[in-house]
Amino acid sequence: MAHAVADHPEPIRAALAKLEALTGCRLGDPCAPLLLSVRPSGPAGSGAIAPAILNLGITAQVLPGLARGLGQRAAADLYRRLIQSYGTGALGVEDEAFEYALYDLMKEAGIESEEAFLSANLADLAARSLALIQSEGIGAFPQDARMQLAGALEALSEAWATPRARRRRLAKGQPENAPLSLIVQAMVLGLGAPPAGAGLFHLRDEASGARAPGGRYLADAQGEEALMGLRTPVMITRAEREAAGLREPSLEELLPAAVDCLIACAELLEARLGEAFTLDFTIAAGEVHILELRPARRSARAALHLAVDLAEAGAISRDEALMRVDPSLIEDHLHPSISPDARRDPIGQGLPASPGAASGELVFSADEAEHAAASGRTVILALVETSPEDIRGMHAAGGVVTVRGGMTSHAAVVARSLGRPCVAGTKDLALDRASGTLTAAGNRQFRAGDVVTVDGGTGQILAGRVEMIPPEITGAFATLMSWADEARRMGVRANADTVQDANVALGFAAEGIGLCRTEHMFFQGGRITAMRRMILASETKTRRAALDELLPMQRSDFIELFEAMAGKPVVIRLLDPPLHEFLPHGEEEMKDLAATLDVPVSQVRLRAGELAEFNPMLGKRGCRIGIAYPEIYQMQARAIFEAACEAGAHTGSPVRPEIMLPLISAVRELVLLKAHISEVAEIVRAERGEMVDYHIGVMIETPRAALRGADIAVESDFLSFGTNDLTQMVYGLSRDDAGRFIPDYVAQNVYEHDPFHSLDLEGVGEIISIAAERARSAAPAISIGLCGEHGADPLSVAFCEQTGLDYISCSPFRVPVARLAAAQATIRTAGRRAKSGHKAGS
Amino acid sequence: MAHAVADHPEPIRAALAKLEALTGCRLGDPCAPLLLSVRPSGPAGSGAIAPAILNLGITAQVLPGLARGLGQRAAADLYRRLIQSYGTGALGVEDEAFEYALYDLMKEAGIESEEAFLSANLADLAARSLALIQSEGIGAFPQDARMQLAGALEALSEAWATPRARRRRLAKGQPENAPLSLIVQAMVLGLGAPPAGAGLFHLRDEASGARAPGGRYLADAQGEEALMGLRTPVMITRAEREAAGLREPSLEELLPAAVDCLIACAELLEARLGEAFTLDFTIAAGEVHILELRPARRSARAALHLAVDLAEAGAISRDEALMRVDPSLIEDHLHPSISPDARRDPIGQGLPASPGAASGELVFSADEAEHAAASGRTVILALVETSPEDIRGMHAAGGVVTVRGGMTSHAAVVARSLGRPCVAGTKDLALDRASGTLTAAGNRQFRAGDVVTVDGGTGQILAGRVEMIPPEITGAFATLMSWADEARRMGVRANADTVQDANVALGFAAEGIGLCRTEHMFFQGGRITAMRRMILASETKTRRAALDELLPMQRSDFIELFEAMAGKPVVIRLLDPPLHEFLPHGEEEMKDLAATLDVPVSQVRLRAGELAEFNPMLGKRGCRIGIAYPEIYQMQARAIFEAACEAGAHTGSPVRPEIMLPLISAVRELVLLKAHISEVAEIVRAERGEMVDYHIGVMIETPRAALRGADIAVESDFLSFGTNDLTQMVYGLSRDDAGRFIPDYVAQNVYEHDPFHSLDLEGVGEIISIAAERARSAAPAISIGLCGEHGADPLSVAFCEQTGLDYISCSPFRVPVARLAAAQATIRTAGRRAKSGHKAGS
Repeated sequence: MAHAVADHPEPIRAALAKLEALTGCRLGDPCAPLLLSVRPSGPAGSGAIAPAILNLGITAQVLPGLARGLGQRAAADLYRRLIQSYGTGALGVEDEAFEYALYDLMKEAGIESEEAFLSANLADLAARSLALIQSEGIGAFPQDARMQLAGALEALSEAWATPRARRRRLAKGQPENAPLSLIVQAMVLGLGAPPAGAGLFHLRDEASGARAPGGRYLADAQGEEALMGLRTPVMITRAEREAAGLREPSLEELLPAAVDCLIACAELLEARLGEAFTLDFTIAAGEVHILELRPARRSARAALHLAVDLAEAGAISRDEALMRVDPSLIEDHLHPSISPDARRDPIGQGLPASPGAASGELVFSADEAEHAAASGRTVILALVETSPEDIRGMHAAGGVVTVRGGMTSHAAVVARSLGRPCVAGTKDLALDRASGTLTAAGNRQFRAGDVVTVDGGTGQILAGRVEMIPPEITGAFATLMSWADEARRMGVRANADTVQDANVALGFAAEGIGLCRTEHMFFQGGRITAMRRMILASETKTRRAALDELLPMQRSDFIELFEAMAGKPVVIRLLDPPLHEFLPHGEEEMKDLAATLDVPVSQVRLRAGELAEFNPMLGKRGCRIGIAYPEIYQMQARAIFEAACEAGAHTGSPVRPEIMLPLISAVRELVLLKAHISEVAEIVRAERGEMVDYHIGVMIETPRAALRGADIAVESDFLSFGTNDLTQMVYGLSRDDAGRFIPDYVAQNVYEHDPFHSLDLEGVGEIISIAAERARSAAPAISIGLCGEHGADPLSVAFCEQTGLDYISCSPFRVPVARLAAAQATIRTAGRRAKSGHKAGS
Repeated sequence: MAHAVADHPEPIRAALAKLEALTGCRLGDPCAPLLLSVRPSGPAGSGAIAPAILNLGITAQVLPGLARGLGQRAAADLYRRLIQSYGTGALGVEDEAFEYALYDLMKEAGIESEEAFLSANLADLAARSLALIQSEGIGAFPQDARMQLAGALEALSEAWATPRARRRRLAKGQPENAPLSLIVQAMVLGLGAPPAGAGLFHLRDEASGARAPGGRYLADAQGEEALMGLRTPVMITRAEREAAGLREPSLEELLPAAVDCLIACAELLEARLGEAFTLDFTIAAGEVHILELRPARRSARAALHLAVDLAEAGAISRDEALMRVDPSLIEDHLHPSISPDARRDPIGQGLPASPGAASGELVFSADEAEHAAASGRTVILALVETSPEDIRGMHAAGGVVTVRGGMTSHAAVVARSLGRPCVAGTKDLALDRASGTLTAAGNRQFRAGDVVTVDGGTGQILAGRVEMIPPEITGAFATLMSWADEARRMGVRANADTVQDANVALGFAAEGIGLCRTEHMFFQGGRITAMRRMILASETKTRRAALDELLPMQRSDFIELFEAMAGKPVVIRLLDPPLHEFLPHGEEEMKDLAATLDVPVSQVRLRAGELAEFNPMLGKRGCRIGIAYPEIYQMQARAIFEAACEAGAHTGSPVRPEIMLPLISAVRELVLLKAHISEVAEIVRAERGEMVDYHIGVMIETPRAALRGADIAVESDFLSFGTNDLTQMVYGLSRDDAGRFIPDYVAQNVYEHDPFHSLDLEGVGEIISIAAERARSAAPAISIGLCGEHGADPLSVAFCEQTGLDYISCSPFRVPVARLAAAQATIRTAGRRAKSGHKAGS
């Protein structure tokens, strides 16, 4: 609301005088009135800002003089525009009210389009608009040009300072009190003598970031009218027009010089400012005026492309380019994603558990998925939840849906490691496996064979097949990644259980394997039978016989893995899950197993009962199995050592396996197991006459292991934080069960975010810091990594950098995310330090 | 082994000269030979010591002179005794070899007892013994009295310093290099002219500690022969003789003056040395000689009795008396225990999960236990494991056996709180509930109705009924407890869920309730139905209606509890277990429930399925329920506030309830729940016109809550460490599943002890220290307690004292243990500090 002001403050007065001298017009001068716009401009990223107020300086007194210069109609048009612009921007009248007034008048005058207004109609509209302000505004429309300017300045300042605007800035991560600039410009009128008009221009494609000049232009227009849809604008370039199949000539065809000028300006801006902009321009008397720049809208891919282009052109540094790309969005490059233009028919919403998208026929069991894949069909596997037995089916499927589970459920973790899109915890879908139906809201039913689409990026399930964009990992992406590798301090490894995983990881330039979970190997093919025989053994002798069967299988797995990694470090975690996970659950499966192993079913049932646990996560698992049955870990150690010898001989690159012990809580566990393993190393050495150089380390996953970091470090070659389990135990929260209430917790702001998704720095991070500090003080040379699901979460990676970890390890498909996040962390934290020996690449 | 020595070192020479002057005899003098004994003596508690070497100084040369004084036979007897004593003590010959020589001789001579030996036989025996040394000894028997003395001194010194003796001292908690005294005494001969003999005397009964002079005496004997069983000794007192039903007159009847002398000596020693001793004495020529003192053997009860007696007599201080009693043994006073003399027929061994002992008829279900108790029979309840539904049955039973579970299984925890003896995890017993049999090793079968005995002190299950000693909590016990209350700094509260528990706790002088678990209240009587209706409710409205049913029941529970506690502090923990724990599991029970609640069984099944969890311990429990369903905690808060008003009005002592929130992991949970509760407080205030003064606190059971101690303290009135859950999470170890491998872990020394039994100071203790320090620095006035099962473990209590906790809370029956342990901790740590305001008693 404008107060009556005697005059403007001195700086404004002086600037105004300059402008008047420059233009030869004067504010409020009835003969040669100066028209002004006031345009608010905040720091980049401060979000929505009130629109500019245009055409300031027109009063009833000035109108005749203006009409003399521009013609009656244009003057009346500008006047009614000013009244509307000032009424909404400075006097709090709803824009809609003015629009109704406009439509009322059109109806009364029997006019179909704004262009058909006569000057009398426009004068009438101005009068009605003034009356509207009179009745609804918080003040009167000032008939004094100076008061108009003062009012506009004050109103836009106030709009910037409202609580709502402050909150909006806070929500965007901007300071609440971010400064505002108000740009006062002499109006350039896009009205009147042609060629005149206004438009928007950009140099790059919004979706791809590639150079593709374009935009919209509307003759006889002001501000953003080209985008408002009242009249149809034209394209900027001929290429655009032809691609859209339009006839109306483009601006390039109408005024080629103007388009050349726009391109030149945009290029200059990119080169000088290191950023791509959308240009608001006006053409007046054939001349191009740039009124305002806004950072160009861009997709994740476009942002990457642009950052690389700008850095290659020297407009920004490589570090700057690295910092501009959001690591969590670059997964889009690695998976097919749904086209932004695609029509979506959502039938369910869950958690975006693994990125990418896939369409395919619904199947309701892992077996069906394998079957369909064998016949070349792409399927979507829908289950209540997955178990290790479903891994082959998940691999065969194009995408996975589970009704239960959270971001770190079995399904989510495996899907990410396989690079399959997955949506987990779709509460609004009911799955009835018996009848083979998936029922969505509104009782829409889908049966096996119906096509659906999984969008792992948003967590949506869509009906039918949807248009996709293919992945892109060459070109700008590859360039950016190479810069990231140069910039980062921490090594990046992959969590890979199979040679397939390892090859994907190598394709994404992982520098080693940070976590190979050996248990997945036991589910493959006929191995599960030998494994079950081992578990059912009541004596060490029978157990050893079953282990002897498993040994060659494990060995060949490790040979494959070591050969693929060709001397790069490989961390192998010994058997971790409780043994009951390997046994069948149903009565029928138990009978089958009893028949296969030729034992009474009662024995199977008894053993399953003995092994059952109330809280398997806190039960007899990890190194506790290795302590109870030393022969199991010893078999694994033998397989590792023998494989290392053979793979080393084949490839010529010596293998130095890193053996990792899970779920250590007391240093004595480590000491005992080290002794068991070194015994095997001695035997293999004696048999082969070759000493395998191996490291032994501990997966830090219990709070106690973290607190005892010093003792444990003294006995270890390396430590690796298993942040999934550590999070479970620090919070007292099972990841399998947490999915049900964490979303509510995050929504109520009880937890700031899902701690299984982004590391909880205040709790889990705190105990990691304590552990790392204690470990380093006791054993300064120890290698410390992180191999939980957090290894590719940018905030978590930043924490790892600050804590001085040597490497991070994540699922193969997220290795590029980790590489970029690690680079950003290095740039952000400390400038580039000398790269440590743990990083092999680049 | 004795080296040839020219002479003894000067101090020995001088002392020997003194002794010779005093006795008028000389070492090695053929006319008046001095005989010596060398007796090793270590610090108290240093364990087994080599026996004294007696009769040193007899050589072939001296023998005739000795025979002149003592007679031929006695001299020969002493000589062969010396050869044997020296041969075993200094020359490494097995004592058994000498015994064989003795028996061989008896056979050859046709003699039936040692007493019948003639002096010629004894001379023959001496010769044979010398030959034995010749063939088997590490040196020759010295025929030089001075060399005998030197050899004995050296041999006993060496025996003290062997690696085995050092290890034995270490195992007893003594310094490896503890000093040894060697006492050289002139022999007093218990042989020869009567009355002569040797014996042992004690002033107090070994089992009770009460004054009851007694011991054994053997005429014509030396050293410990009275106990060796070669000849039958007599009793010391007539009372003893009569109690044993023997005829042979006691020493008191033979030589009353000698017994008076022994009693006077023992009394003097107790008064001067503050300890009860066993006296080794010899009577020579009617005179009593005290040769040696050893701390008297004593049972736990005797130790207590003695400590109190000694302190009351002024022989030791009260602090000293408190320090002398092992807190973990005083539970014996609180429960019946098996008589040490009882015949035991063990049929199974498990963990000593709850102390005390009971005999009764076997039953295999909680219902049967209740039934039997109603008809006045004492039963032993045997189950695979217990669940909350079995609590009434456990209460009804005299003792409990479970086949599964560890020291902190449900059965163990509940049994301790009920004061019922319990043995858990009896792996060698097979329970077949269907056929109603318990099968022990050797296929011994026990059926319902068969009598067995549970020994909660040792973990044994015994066949049949066994003789018991009743509990004793008055007299010396009560006196010691009153001294403990004066000495301790920390308050002692009880974990009590019911008014029955509270009364037991008050009987043991608990100063308040440190943990009232409200969930047990929901299992009682018809409440479980209302609870289940609440859980099955799909809408807040229905849930509220069910809660309205529960409200008056909860309120009346709290009224009872508050009235019993009469203004003493009561900490009430809001609902903690996951809701599925309250639902039935079997199909039949689900049908029954569906019928009771008049809902389709499918609804029960569906809800049970929705609520099922993989790891309930880490699931939706504790405050997570309060956040998800605010109305549940609000009902509980209302019940608490209303009960506080009513109980306060009835008793005249205002009630200030302390509301405790379980499983907090983030401060925001606390903030939200505080707001919900204060809302209810406002409503109750408005309704009753009375403001309840209440405190809100947090049960610190997740590592994260410990790490965030500062934030949480700022929002809390008190904190209480729930060390059971904290241990589970710090170790990643479920207490329900841990029982299966913790014993192996402790046996292999992987864990030093069961961390659920005694606090793990290195891990759990460490995080408690971190939390307490952070909490105190943020909120110096905050009250901090501990309410886990560790509250009555002496080592854990000592840690609590060092950490400066305000109080500890344990199960009612263990309150005396905690009181004594707390007193010892105060005495040990810092001398007595001013008692804090948290302690109300004494």
